[in-house]
Amino acid sequence: MKIALAQLNPTIGDLVNNAQKILHQAYLADQQGANLLLTPELSLCGYPPKDLLLNPSFVEKNEAQLSQLAQQLPPHLRVLVGTVTPNLAAPTQGEKELFNSIALLYQGKIQQRFHKQLLPTYDVFDEDRYFAEGKSSNYFNLGNLKIGVTICEDLWNEEGFWQKRYYPTNPIADLQAQGVNLIVNLSASPYRLRKQQLREDLVRHTVKKYQIPIIYVNQVGGNDDLIFDGYSFAINQSGKLVSRSPGFQESLNFLDWSETQPDLLPSVQHNLAFSEEEELFQALVLGVRDYAHKCGFSQAILGLSGGIDSSLVAAIAVEALGPNHVLGVLMPSPYSSDHSLKDAEDLVKNLGMKQEILPIGSLMTSYDHSLEALFQNTEFGIAEENLQSRIRGNLLMAIANKFGYLLLSTGNKSEMAVGYCTLYGDMNGGLAVIADVPKTRVFSLCQWLNREQEVIPKNVLSKPPSAELKPNQIDQDSLPPYDILDAILDRLIHHHQSVQQIIDQGFESATVEKVFQLVSRAEFKRKQAPPGLKVTDRAFGTGWRMPIASRWLS
Amino acid sequence: MKIALAQLNPTIGDLVNNAQKILHQAYLADQQGANLLLTPELSLCGYPPKDLLLNPSFVEKNEAQLSQLAQQLPPHLRVLVGTVTPNLAAPTQGEKELFNSIALLYQGKIQQRFHKQLLPTYDVFDEDRYFAEGKSSNYFNLGNLKIGVTICEDLWNEEGFWQKRYYPTNPIADLQAQGVNLIVNLSASPYRLRKQQLREDLVRHTVKKYQIPIIYVNQVGGNDDLIFDGYSFAINQSGKLVSRSPGFQESLNFLDWSETQPDLLPSVQHNLAFSEEEELFQALVLGVRDYAHKCGFSQAILGLSGGIDSSLVAAIAVEALGPNHVLGVLMPSPYSSDHSLKDAEDLVKNLGMKQEILPIGSLMTSYDHSLEALFQNTEFGIAEENLQSRIRGNLLMAIANKFGYLLLSTGNKSEMAVGYCTLYGDMNGGLAVIADVPKTRVFSLCQWLNREQEVIPKNVLSKPPSAELKPNQIDQDSLPPYDILDAILDRLIHHHQSVQQIIDQGFESATVEKVFQLVSRAEFKRKQAPPGLKVTDRAFGTGWRMPIASRWLS
Repeated sequence: MKIALAQLNPTIGDLVNNAQKILHQAYLADQQGANLLLTPELSLCGYPPKDLLLNPSFVEKNEAQLSQLAQQLPPHLRVLVGTVTPNLAAPTQGEKELFNSIALLYQGKIQQRFHKQLLPTYDVFDEDRYFAEGKSSNYFNLGNLKIGVTICEDLWNEEGFWQKRYYPTNPIADLQAQGVNLIVNLSASPYRLRKQQLREDLVRHTVKKYQIPIIYVNQVGGNDDLIFDGYSFAINQSGKLVSRSPGFQESLNFLDWSETQPDLLPSVQHNLAFSEEEELFQALVLGVRDYAHKCGFSQAILGLSGGIDSSLVAAIAVEALGPNHVLGVLMPSPYSSDHSLKDAEDLVKNLGMKQEILPIGSLMTSYDHSLEALFQNTEFGIAEENLQSRIRGNLLMAIANKFGYLLLSTGNKSEMAVGYCTLYGDMNGGLAVIADVPKTRVFSLCQWLNREQEVIPKNVLSKPPSAELKPNQIDQDSLPPYDILDAILDRLIHHHQSVQQIIDQGFESATVEKVFQLVSRAEFKRKQAPPGLKVTDRAFGTGWRMPIASRWLS
Repeated sequence: MKIALAQLNPTIGDLVNNAQKILHQAYLADQQGANLLLTPELSLCGYPPKDLLLNPSFVEKNEAQLSQLAQQLPPHLRVLVGTVTPNLAAPTQGEKELFNSIALLYQGKIQQRFHKQLLPTYDVFDEDRYFAEGKSSNYFNLGNLKIGVTICEDLWNEEGFWQKRYYPTNPIADLQAQGVNLIVNLSASPYRLRKQQLREDLVRHTVKKYQIPIIYVNQVGGNDDLIFDGYSFAINQSGKLVSRSPGFQESLNFLDWSETQPDLLPSVQHNLAFSEEEELFQALVLGVRDYAHKCGFSQAILGLSGGIDSSLVAAIAVEALGPNHVLGVLMPSPYSSDHSLKDAEDLVKNLGMKQEILPIGSLMTSYDHSLEALFQNTEFGIAEENLQSRIRGNLLMAIANKFGYLLLSTGNKSEMAVGYCTLYGDMNGGLAVIADVPKTRVFSLCQWLNREQEVIPKNVLSKPPSAELKPNQIDQDSLPPYDILDAILDRLIHHHQSVQQIIDQGFESATVEKVFQLVSRAEFKRKQAPPGLKVTDRAFGTGWRMPIASRWLS
């Protein structure tokens, strides 16, 4: 038996083209003699479809598209397609109106449906908002094989692995009880740094426990804030990795099942990214490329300050869209240091991207004149600093609007956390590329970029970070050193630790308290931030749901 | 038996002050001889606490505050307090780690806990993200009374009322089976237009079906986008309303239980708002006041264009914060019509608010100069229109930053829907006051404001709406007439209808298709909008979760 794994990059809601993608892979798989084609969770509508699911016409068109696809597919190939299914028992049983399903298409028809049983509601997930829980685990027969079908989260409730239960039931254990020979898990599992290692560890643990090989197929591609990394893989009965699809790109891979062993035979194994930095860079590049293209942009624009954040974002954008499709705008002010302009120009040269220079001094003067009467007898402060950032934001948006560029914002996670950024200024953009990358990681990414030759100018890496919104300003005037700041933020954000717990680990209490307050008070800014590419377990964005007008202070 | 209903306005996360509020009401109730005090759902931490619930220290401090409160309360008064409770069975049973609970405090101790059973996950609600379902309905004894305790959604699964079931179980039916004499429902039920009529209809239906009187206590106050309207009430065994607390303000009301009847005796009944407009206005005023005060602002600023939207928002802000605490900024451009400045000045006079005038012509010229080389040989278009709006946005933010004002944005729901607004321009603000009010309702609200004397200048109401971003521009150049637009939007947004369904009702197909596309394409703007006060069943905001980079076009 030959099984094909289609690691697909659907566009949310684009049913016709997503179906075409599946059809195309199916014909390729059929040509290679495959008996079964696997596609990711909700491969027909893309994951996550969010509130599109609340439109009855969206569900109807999914159903119609699925039926049509069944008729178009090669008749002798079984294809598992991710789709939504109306739950007809909903009004009488008091359940949600849909199932998150996998349909088995074969011989022109929808032969069977498998419903997701474990519905995640943590982090970015809202599956209880739309879906009813499937009530049983099921399999289908392929020759002598009994293949159990699970969907994403169904696999993630292994008490022995997590040392706790997350859901009352375990679909894998149920399938073992039904005597299946093979389990497929069709997923749309969002990326975070080194997530693939976790997936493989979990699946290896599960295979060893139940003595059933598992094939895991993941979605790939960027959908707004979420990046799906792909890396579909399989682990055979003895716990060995026998196949791994590439990361961050579409692919069609094949696996053979040996009747004699009986087990999955070794197949192609793509490597994981060599370093964390390489992996992150690949992820961010995919996130930018897909957000741009799926929104209909071929070109991007960003402000270049000569600082490290905008330099990194420029490098990512150039990799994603090509140097001729990225415009860097240098907007020096009287407070810009001598080296800023030169550093930015060196970067532009290194990356081969497009460049414009628009000094903002005269606009600053114009605003000063306009506000002169109102601001008389007040001191230069945050209002004036923000104005510079907002002038730059306006210029960038004007150019973006005029020529149809996607504006990329360049703030990092440390800044977004403490609000060291200007709303309607440097926060402007359609996508916040490194909003989930802490400043210390921004440095290591740039060092990685320079591993063979200088991409990020050396001076950008060596000078102290500065917003350059007043004379001789550096970030460390207002913030703790970034290694301290990031260590505190990591504990607050990713580990849900309290101020006291962090102080107890040896951090200065005044610093921890200040950081906590800054994070709380910046909630209103983050509320209005563009989508930021998620690369950690807890990004500011759809998985971060904080009240603004609150008073929780510890 | 005397029962006190405390309709409270907590601040999210402000455990100490929320506890003080409960304590204060308890002493007042005790002085009036009450035997039982009822407070709303999660009255200790405020609703909704959102991801604060994910911090273990938040849960611990809730528990500590609750124990302390129990000791401080008058010992002979029973008090029901809304709080979160750790679910100790979570790791072994695969459940969520908290319950949404009501604690019965009496004689210095926590005597009993009641857990919410029905957890909403639609619209703005995410309760499955945090809470495990309570597994049983329970009651407590007060003299001869067996009082069943339910929490908000527990009441909202009455099949006979909705003609369908929303949840598998019905806590009210369970309590009837246990023979309770009285049911209390402690809620934090967000406002929408005429929601209170629905609540009273539902409770009346439920009382008649089960023959058990119900006391309903609601939270009041604004928490970010959500407004809680209060209107706590009771319906006696014969289905009659015997008590209604006022809307949109805190209150302490009393009900007597007659042992002889046995039933609730008639008590104070506050009226509902006379008209939909009066109710909406009260809601929006509360929303602005609480958002400002809970965020630490006493003063607000907004741009006044002489148009109807900013005029309405000014009237709301003045009512919420007082005329001396609201600054209107008039920012005429060369494209502003003669009457705009005069209309805005008339409004300022009518409202008695503060005013500044900052013409933007010279700033427009400065931007034109800065962008001259880049924009040469291009035509005046969206980029230039947006620039004007963004200059105004910058000036407003500069003043807000300088003097500590809360900036209010003034876009209505029709504009937000179709993207007829400028990101980083007129969308700027900490709160979008009328973002859930369609344009046709903006008109009726202004007419209502003028019912006794002119508040909104007549010319503002009679002239055709215009953004005035180019010569002789009016909204209807780009958009269908507002009555048509709002009728289409209502079907798309509130009734989940498809383009085809709307066309089938007689709307022009080109118009419906255009509106649908505009709504889809404006998703990126709404993603970055400030919180908007929710006054309908489906507001853009926490209850509207749409993908941006999607291609769903029907």
